[in-house]
Amino acid sequence: MTVRKVKSVWNGTLKEGKGNMDITGYSGPFTFASRFENGKGTNPEELVGAAQSGCYSMFLSALISGEGLNPASIETEAAVTLGEVDGEIGRASCRERV
Amino acid sequence: MTVRKVKSVWNGTLKEGKGNMDITGYSGPFTFASRFENGKGTNPEELVGAAQSGCYSMFLSALISGEGLNPASIETEAAVTLGEVDGEIGRASCRERV
Repeated sequence: MTVRKVKSVWNGTLKEGKGNMDITGYSGPFTFASRFENGKGTNPEELVGAAQSGCYSMFLSALISGEGLNPASIETEAAVTLGEVDGEIGRASCRERV
Repeated sequence: MTVRKVKSVWNGTLKEGKGNMDITGYSGPFTFASRFENGKGTNPEELVGAAQSGCYSMFLSALISGEGLNPASIETEAAVTLGEVDGEIGRASCRERV
């Protein structure tokens, strides 16, 4: 059983503020613009997509390794859609392509 | 409707290989050891926790801002537990503390 502790901070109001999402080795900056518009920085949707595609690539490697083969490189792309679900903002979907 | 595309790669076998999970501004390295042991690097669980805690901090700021107040700083810690669920490896829980 492994427990990973991470933290995030948001300073200021929703639109004028800014925050950081910390993972090992990096503190990812994000703003209203980087999340809902095309501003510089990262956003929670990217992190969810990266986590899912990373997990997918690693697990597929495990399945191939388990068959006695040696997988060279597995690249997975995730597309996370943020939009309205029943009138509320939500993650509508996450599609993956290997 | 915003679509975020990210990609991850895994090179080699499960135990000897290594990978990267890419977000804007950073390519997060991960290995079997950084995921299941105490090796150097990040892991998908951290990214999920960071995304959830970042989203939580930002949304709480929005609620406070909506009441006409000016939130100074909101810090959220997420603890993601990776363990066995019905005999399979899975994310058992994600707890948040503000």
